[in-house]
Amino acid sequence: MRVGGRHYRTIWPEDGAVVVIDQTRLPFELVTKPLHTMADAAEAISTMVVRGAPLIGATAAYGVALAMSSDPSDASLDEAVRAIGATRPTAVNLHWALHRMESRLRGFTPDERAAFAFDEAGRIAEEDVGCCRAIGEHGAALVREIAERTSRPVNILTHCNAGWLAAIDWGTALAPAYVAHEAGIPLHVWVDETRPRNQGAALTAFELAGHGIPHTVIADNAGGHLMQHGEVDLCIVGSDRTTATGDVGNKIGTYLKALAAKDNGVPFYAALPFSTIDWSLKDGVAEIPIEERSTRELTHMRGRTAAGGFETVEIVAPGSPAANPAFDVTPARLVTGIITERGIAKASREGLLALYPEQAAA
Amino acid sequence: MRVGGRHYRTIWPEDGAVVVIDQTRLPFELVTKPLHTMADAAEAISTMVVRGAPLIGATAAYGVALAMSSDPSDASLDEAVRAIGATRPTAVNLHWALHRMESRLRGFTPDERAAFAFDEAGRIAEEDVGCCRAIGEHGAALVREIAERTSRPVNILTHCNAGWLAAIDWGTALAPAYVAHEAGIPLHVWVDETRPRNQGAALTAFELAGHGIPHTVIADNAGGHLMQHGEVDLCIVGSDRTTATGDVGNKIGTYLKALAAKDNGVPFYAALPFSTIDWSLKDGVAEIPIEERSTRELTHMRGRTAAGGFETVEIVAPGSPAANPAFDVTPARLVTGIITERGIAKASREGLLALYPEQAAA
Repeated sequence: MRVGGRHYRTIWPEDGAVVVIDQTRLPFELVTKPLHTMADAAEAISTMVVRGAPLIGATAAYGVALAMSSDPSDASLDEAVRAIGATRPTAVNLHWALHRMESRLRGFTPDERAAFAFDEAGRIAEEDVGCCRAIGEHGAALVREIAERTSRPVNILTHCNAGWLAAIDWGTALAPAYVAHEAGIPLHVWVDETRPRNQGAALTAFELAGHGIPHTVIADNAGGHLMQHGEVDLCIVGSDRTTATGDVGNKIGTYLKALAAKDNGVPFYAALPFSTIDWSLKDGVAEIPIEERSTRELTHMRGRTAAGGFETVEIVAPGSPAANPAFDVTPARLVTGIITERGIAKASREGLLALYPEQAAA
Repeated sequence: MRVGGRHYRTIWPEDGAVVVIDQTRLPFELVTKPLHTMADAAEAISTMVVRGAPLIGATAAYGVALAMSSDPSDASLDEAVRAIGATRPTAVNLHWALHRMESRLRGFTPDERAAFAFDEAGRIAEEDVGCCRAIGEHGAALVREIAERTSRPVNILTHCNAGWLAAIDWGTALAPAYVAHEAGIPLHVWVDETRPRNQGAALTAFELAGHGIPHTVIADNAGGHLMQHGEVDLCIVGSDRTTATGDVGNKIGTYLKALAAKDNGVPFYAALPFSTIDWSLKDGVAEIPIEERSTRELTHMRGRTAAGGFETVEIVAPGSPAANPAFDVTPARLVTGIITERGIAKASREGLLALYPEQAAA
């Protein structure tokens, strides 16, 4: 999408390397970073230079391609899949992308692998753009329906960043807002700041500002109050892993917003590509692994000083312990529907299988 | 309670002035601040040098006493009540304390007022200490029951700061933890950081650390996930204004925790002195005024740098608008009980009137 009038994607190949936007520098600096090796790609994922389920998948695929450029052997392929697979435990797209790369590359001799691997990673990225655009079309129909019914701007609440910065372009949860905005439907987005990493305040707000979409940043604590007072028409969030039964694993705090939406009759949707669905899982709360991240994400905060520099400040009482679970699971019973590239499904096995009948056999 | 082995209260008279702990300097610096005039007291409330419903009430009372010291006229009394009453809209204790001071001072001639006013403010403070201690005793019985049933440390989740720093001593929501801890009942407190002002991370964690109570700071987003996984036995929060029907106005985000507690069968209590109950209100969501505070509380964060200095950093995408409602209302249907100085009431008119039968006539 647009930043300062220019169109960007989050990842692209360039001169044998792969270039990404360094998302740890946003929202104050738009800086790109070249990844030259598989280890660079793994580090970019684990340090959250890139983040967001679809972008993690694409970066993993390009990471395998970078490994194949330097050493196309079976051992190198094994090591790339292992090392990149170990970076983040929750996002299923990571393993989906690695599995796709590995299974297709096995069919090639080592000397054919590098070129094919870059092509395949590029296809993963292009397919994601297509998926996100389709998610946007399906979700925009919901926004249009509310706008026509209420004759005022539609208030959408989102949590974390599942916009174009989390994908390759368009995004998942924000794609309906982008498509609706481009169609001239008036809307406004409530942006949860999304502690502890503030992806909402830093990334979602940056995206929406860059593209000219009206929005307001709020504390994660505020959404329930806004829903009680009729200020939210629709919640749309992304997902890092969704079970075959429609339980939605997403950024920590999503579950709380889903509870508030249910309590106030506000529709609550998760928007995600097929690659986010883990067809092997039935019970999200019991089965989706939840990453515990560094407590420093909670105890320290980086930002821009009045002088224009950057500083990291300590914000928790010194010596007090902290805990930092990064995701939670919203049970399907709280999810109005799942917006995918194929349409909107009920959050249930039957609903998802109606869109993905080929999975019924599996 | 204790800090570094020494016992503190949050406010006390000293040499004709009133001394408070400057809570904006916590948790990194324990600094006291003298209030010499009524305007000093009003400013301390509005800038949150002091905060927490009971402490706001006591500071308001001492503010009236300071006004009477310099000018004990009726006009001065009127102006003190007006000026201090305008500082914070949500906390009912503020108006309760001002009304008590005003109605009692009217019975004295101006030349008697200053001495009586200081005595009366002191009584308000002492009565609050007694209330909080009693709240602690009643709430500790809940903690003891869980400890005896489970034979392991009791996990209590709290939101914001309703500890001794929010009162004069003991606190409201944390009083049960202090009393249980002193009785040797093993417990651990999950401390919501409480964005945007981080009273949990800064004040509650500071309090609990100072008094030696095991605790862990978490993002506000994390509580639902912890409850889903059986990591919370009991939620106890404070209140800034509670309706006669048991709706609980408290720090923004409380409602979300109450929803999660209900969804997971975790008991959810509000702990508050009688002065927090607004007997004139029936419908908290419709009637409790919600303070909108400066968006700078959300967009900027103050903390300690690695070099040991203090810095305020900008953390939201530049130019993105923000909103900052400071309180929300938890409907009585989500509240297991209300812990007051007289015992534990059902969150309903009948429940509260059973503890306060004298209000039935009013």
